[in-house]
Amino acid sequence: MNELNIGLIGAGFIGRIHSIAFQMVKGFFAEKTKNVSFKILAEDNEEAARSGAAHLGFDEWTSNYRELLERKDIQLVVIAVPNNKHKQIVLEAIDHGKHILCEKPLALSASDAKEMYDAAQKAGIKHGIGFNYRKVQAILLIKRWVDQGLFGDMVSYRSSFMQDWGLDVSGPLSWRFQKKIAGSGSLGDLGSHAIDMARFLIGEVSAVIGTASTHIKKRPISAGGFGQKHDTGAAKYGKVDVDDVCDMLMEFENGAQGNMVASRLAAGRKNHFEFELYGTKAGVFFDWERPNEVLFSSVDMPNDQSGFNRILVGGFQHPYGESLWPIPGMGIGFAEPFAVQLYEIIDAVMNNKKVTPSFYDGWMINRVLDAVESSLKKRAWCKV
Amino acid sequence: MNELNIGLIGAGFIGRIHSIAFQMVKGFFAEKTKNVSFKILAEDNEEAARSGAAHLGFDEWTSNYRELLERKDIQLVVIAVPNNKHKQIVLEAIDHGKHILCEKPLALSASDAKEMYDAAQKAGIKHGIGFNYRKVQAILLIKRWVDQGLFGDMVSYRSSFMQDWGLDVSGPLSWRFQKKIAGSGSLGDLGSHAIDMARFLIGEVSAVIGTASTHIKKRPISAGGFGQKHDTGAAKYGKVDVDDVCDMLMEFENGAQGNMVASRLAAGRKNHFEFELYGTKAGVFFDWERPNEVLFSSVDMPNDQSGFNRILVGGFQHPYGESLWPIPGMGIGFAEPFAVQLYEIIDAVMNNKKVTPSFYDGWMINRVLDAVESSLKKRAWCKV
Amino acid sequence: MNELNIGLIGAGFIGRIHSIAFQMVKGFFAEKTKNVSFKILAEDNEEAARSGAAHLGFDEWTSNYRELLERKDIQLVVIAVPNNKHKQIVLEAIDHGKHILCEKPLALSASDAKEMYDAAQKAGIKHGIGFNYRKVQAILLIKRWVDQGLFGDMVSYRSSFMQDWGLDVSGPLSWRFQKKIAGSGSLGDLGSHAIDMARFLIGEVSAVIGTASTHIKKRPISAGGFGQKHDTGAAKYGKVDVDDVCDMLMEFENGAQGNMVASRLAAGRKNHFEFELYGTKAGVFFDWERPNEVLFSSVDMPNDQSGFNRILVGGFQHPYGESLWPIPGMGIGFAEPFAVQLYEIIDAVMNNKKVTPSFYDGWMINRVLDAVESSLKKRAWCKV
Amino acid sequence: MNELNIGLIGAGFIGRIHSIAFQMVKGFFAEKTKNVSFKILAEDNEEAARSGAAHLGFDEWTSNYRELLERKDIQLVVIAVPNNKHKQIVLEAIDHGKHILCEKPLALSASDAKEMYDAAQKAGIKHGIGFNYRKVQAILLIKRWVDQGLFGDMVSYRSSFMQDWGLDVSGPLSWRFQKKIAGSGSLGDLGSHAIDMARFLIGEVSAVIGTASTHIKKRPISAGGFGQKHDTGAAKYGKVDVDDVCDMLMEFENGAQGNMVASRLAAGRKNHFEFELYGTKAGVFFDWERPNEVLFSSVDMPNDQSGFNRILVGGFQHPYGESLWPIPGMGIGFAEPFAVQLYEIIDAVMNNKKVTPSFYDGWMINRVLDAVESSLKKRAWCKV
Repeated sequence: MNELNIGLIGAGFIGRIHSIAFQMVKGFFAEKTKNVSFKILAEDNEEAARSGAAHLGFDEWTSNYRELLERKDIQLVVIAVPNNKHKQIVLEAIDHGKHILCEKPLALSASDAKEMYDAAQKAGIKHGIGFNYRKVQAILLIKRWVDQGLFGDMVSYRSSFMQDWGLDVSGPLSWRFQKKIAGSGSLGDLGSHAIDMARFLIGEVSAVIGTASTHIKKRPISAGGFGQKHDTGAAKYGKVDVDDVCDMLMEFENGAQGNMVASRLAAGRKNHFEFELYGTKAGVFFDWERPNEVLFSSVDMPNDQSGFNRILVGGFQHPYGESLWPIPGMGIGFAEPFAVQLYEIIDAVMNNKKVTPSFYDGWMINRVLDAVESSLKKRAWCKV
Repeated sequence: MNELNIGLIGAGFIGRIHSIAFQMVKGFFAEKTKNVSFKILAEDNEEAARSGAAHLGFDEWTSNYRELLERKDIQLVVIAVPNNKHKQIVLEAIDHGKHILCEKPLALSASDAKEMYDAAQKAGIKHGIGFNYRKVQAILLIKRWVDQGLFGDMVSYRSSFMQDWGLDVSGPLSWRFQKKIAGSGSLGDLGSHAIDMARFLIGEVSAVIGTASTHIKKRPISAGGFGQKHDTGAAKYGKVDVDDVCDMLMEFENGAQGNMVASRLAAGRKNHFEFELYGTKAGVFFDWERPNEVLFSSVDMPNDQSGFNRILVGGFQHPYGESLWPIPGMGIGFAEPFAVQLYEIIDAVMNNKKVTPSFYDGWMINRVLDAVESSLKKRAWCKV
Repeated sequence: MNELNIGLIGAGFIGRIHSIAFQMVKGFFAEKTKNVSFKILAEDNEEAARSGAAHLGFDEWTSNYRELLERKDIQLVVIAVPNNKHKQIVLEAIDHGKHILCEKPLALSASDAKEMYDAAQKAGIKHGIGFNYRKVQAILLIKRWVDQGLFGDMVSYRSSFMQDWGLDVSGPLSWRFQKKIAGSGSLGDLGSHAIDMARFLIGEVSAVIGTASTHIKKRPISAGGFGQKHDTGAAKYGKVDVDDVCDMLMEFENGAQGNMVASRLAAGRKNHFEFELYGTKAGVFFDWERPNEVLFSSVDMPNDQSGFNRILVGGFQHPYGESLWPIPGMGIGFAEPFAVQLYEIIDAVMNNKKVTPSFYDGWMINRVLDAVESSLKKRAWCKV
Repeated sequence: MNELNIGLIGAGFIGRIHSIAFQMVKGFFAEKTKNVSFKILAEDNEEAARSGAAHLGFDEWTSNYRELLERKDIQLVVIAVPNNKHKQIVLEAIDHGKHILCEKPLALSASDAKEMYDAAQKAGIKHGIGFNYRKVQAILLIKRWVDQGLFGDMVSYRSSFMQDWGLDVSGPLSWRFQKKIAGSGSLGDLGSHAIDMARFLIGEVSAVIGTASTHIKKRPISAGGFGQKHDTGAAKYGKVDVDDVCDMLMEFENGAQGNMVASRLAAGRKNHFEFELYGTKAGVFFDWERPNEVLFSSVDMPNDQSGFNRILVGGFQHPYGESLWPIPGMGIGFAEPFAVQLYEIIDAVMNNKKVTPSFYDGWMINRVLDAVESSLKKRAWCKV
């Protein structure tokens, strides 16, 4: 394939990130994506679609995503809409033979996710899912070390994904606070990244148990989303029916164990995704707020130098060093992992390669999320 | 009381810390402890007792702790022996009317701990338990803020206590790896500190569930303890029957929730006790490896300055600032909290004050530990 | 102006950054730059120009920059060539009435820089200079606080810009090691950023004195640049005649003082630009390796909370928050400040606004650099 | 020698630290210092002496230091008085054949320091000087690596010692702000530590140049010292005639270069002594506010693991690991280096060993300080 046109469905917070990431793809991978275009945007409301197109730099737009799906010149669709709409759009896109990059979590349930995965496999399309943190250079480096056996046998995993914007009681009751749209709260929104990371680096989760709570039980019904100013005089309030905070334990098939906490009520934490991973030979620590650093420790270090080595990622010695920044410490930001993710599915479509993470991984994560939800209800360990 | 003589039972790793802490008490609280002495050391074996006394600076020693307990001139006993011996010695010490500072965990079970607590209360002695981290200035400062209401309602607690010395497979099968002596592994040894901290700062734990594993299942039977060189050619191995790693979830009576992981197999972690605590108004982070720092965030910070404020503890504006170092950043080390802990029970005995944490707290922690152990067996949430 | 076409001169390390930054401009500022294009690339050698155009995503290229300058449809020129070529190209571009963004340092001497500045002023073109760190959100935030008077009177500035790639003795004798091309070594390459930052935040430098040394006195004559693998079997070596390390003191017109060290031989430092700035009311610390963090301290903090507040930059409450990432902690990387810098000159050209930093600032920095060089020769304080 | 009695002259801020350090000596080195006593305290004023003795735990005291010097049973004298009194007391102590540990800086001038050094050498006494940071385990570890050649040729040194208590304009005009008593301000008080560290790790300084300023030019004449509350209603003010801030450059005999800044006006810095040191093979970073951490980088690290390794000091593999804490991360505080320093001179006296740093080092530092002062006056490089 020499030419590739992409359609984006969703002009919100995440949709904009994909449109920025696409520009970065054109910057970092210019030669390989010469004939690739972000062609058309779909967003539900006509006014939102028009202004979104202008804001995100699209020439074409539609207020009906089906119009986009029917376009013969569109080969790849990026789906960045609220969670409850993933399934419908994905299945239709598959029907139209589109390749798909879908935001996470893939679906509201594992059974839905499986249906989507099966359909995609049957249709033979390329399918990817937006677990963007997997594409952070630092984490690709950790994964390389895992594959090289530097960690020995896996022992334990500790992770947290914390933010604090939920503490603002005047923040609107967005779709992220509504179970029927989001599926869950901090668990699916944030925790799913930490769980995906665990699967990526350690292996399959076998059993889970969680505890969750909602501390701010109602929020104003008003407009506004992430990072926007909001009016504070809302007269009407709606009920929050998802978790503000979720803690969970994980057991892995290979005998490792771990924990995770996701929270939107962690004062001082902005986009704080951190994890540490220990094997019998080495340990590693990562924190997205310092995205270019890996802390690495090995039992093979000289006795008087045992410590956590802070490695700055970048340069040809590290994953994607040839394409991204050539010097460690120049530093990537939020867009680069999205750009790598988008580039990989473009490359997969154009050159018939395998995409990872795929809907399979999305399905696996939905299985874990279902098990956690189940454990909350039953107050018992649940098998995945 | 004008004069106070103290006996120390146990000349091992922890016993030595208490003897050093005692010297620091004489340094930092010289005026108030002018007539206080570390008088006599008891250690089981005659040779160990003699050399321990020389090593720790005691004039008198005995290889029979009962001799120490029978001494009329000893009013306060510090008990720093393996966990399984706490109960017997504590009960005898109470019989002799001694005041007691006992190492943690108080007992091998909650029922034993309760028996010890009841006996101490009945006898009217002063009783303290060695949860030394409570006496870190930074943590006393956090506690002050908690009491001042800076945190609002408590939301969540995340904690870990990790070390890596267990990764050395040539390390000896010390008592810390034997259930009948230690009660548990990383859970009781390390996790108990993190659980005590939760109770101290948040309130009572209502329910727990854990998962634990042992990765290095046998260890050489040979001499040596913490931080000592050991011979690596041991011919005989014994079974490890305690946990190397333990993860747990906690629910609190006041609606907060949290998690904890304790590990002896975390490459790169040396004595890494860290926790973070979030309420609806503020958050805080502490890490013992940076013992003079508190990271504090409040929702009341100016909008463009919201962050984690790294406060260096020290000086008269902070707890014990009058007695310890007068300038922030001079910095305490491992001994200072032990010194404060020892000073407080000395002060309590001499001036008839209340000691905290006491055997009551020790009992409460043993209840939580029992519940965790129970949750491991039953694989179910257990009420505390 | 409704449409703007840009030409890029230079397809090397820095040229590529500008081409990536341009794509980010299209991502972050899509609506405002709808009709802005990176139109044509000039690079000396025909093969380099052709492959550079492909690599950087240009449709048009030329091996003669004059061809680019003669193009009527090009309004803005980005100059990213070795330092010794800036003057000639800039003067010609001015002759052609082009607006210019030139890389730093502006010239090899203050007199050359003044000539360039005068010519640009006379021609009435927009002129900017590539002190990209000024456009980091964290630093724009510090500048805002400076302007708001949060710092009181300025007291002192400490800065360092350290890298370690120079320690590799097999690295080629690139133009950066040759005085006739680069002007100086670590001083002009790295130190100029730290000096520019001082001027930006504090004010004019009045006097300087430096000391400098070259430890690796010869390097292999072979191909390769930043971040590239190089062959290590070079047979021929050339002389290094620029500084590896340069330390300097600064005195400011307003009575503040400071120091700076630039080094290419600092093992473990990758792209380590850090500075701290103190006034009578506040202090601040910044380190590019953690580009989204500002550490801020004020004498107005509550007595028991005095510390360095780690503020994560991002979101509408911070400079460019509306255009870049909406949530603190999402995080910018190396490209974003270049994108802001490019956007600002695009905006200045299209909407007739003032550009800052301009050639004036470039001239001022060349004056300081000249004074430092002079101080090295005379071994005496030199007025700027 | 089997028994050793020590006299302490000075019951102020630093005197108290020595008395606390002595108790730690008795804790950490109990066996070896069984017959060593802190016997008598001298402090000028009778009331201050009496209360100081009680506060610091001395049985005996005198308000006349000569009485102390005349005591036959005192072999070692610790001198912790303002700088201008060092010379007189040291010379008298030498006359009485006492061994001496004197606080830094040794004298107000190099010529005075030389006189003191010569007298001490002639008398054959043991003489040490209180550059306590040399005795930090982390720094002894760096020194060991230096001696092992891990750094290659020395390239550069960057150091700062910053505090912020000077920003409090209501703080009293203590002796530290008066040239006739203190000699200099931040330079001698703080900078001398950083300069001593440079000599310790790199070698002799050959030339220096500095710049210094005083921003708070008068301070209230009232009581109070470090870390004490002070009344803020002082009616009288006195002139500050020492530097608040001092920056300097250093050149070393071996070709290395460096800088140093000392400041009492650095908002947010409490006791912030940090330095970094680079050679052609390795680099190291140390910050006293994190006293148990060394950051170490070597060119020999694997290419994809090049970084700064954060090593937690402690345990038998590190200097003094046998005597201090057996596990890395237990952690030393401010007292431990003073205790090691005091132990070493006790050991030197009892077992006829060499003391380092000695008055020779004190003299060398005074030579550098004189050269810096001279450079401030002449505004020129000054040879040391």
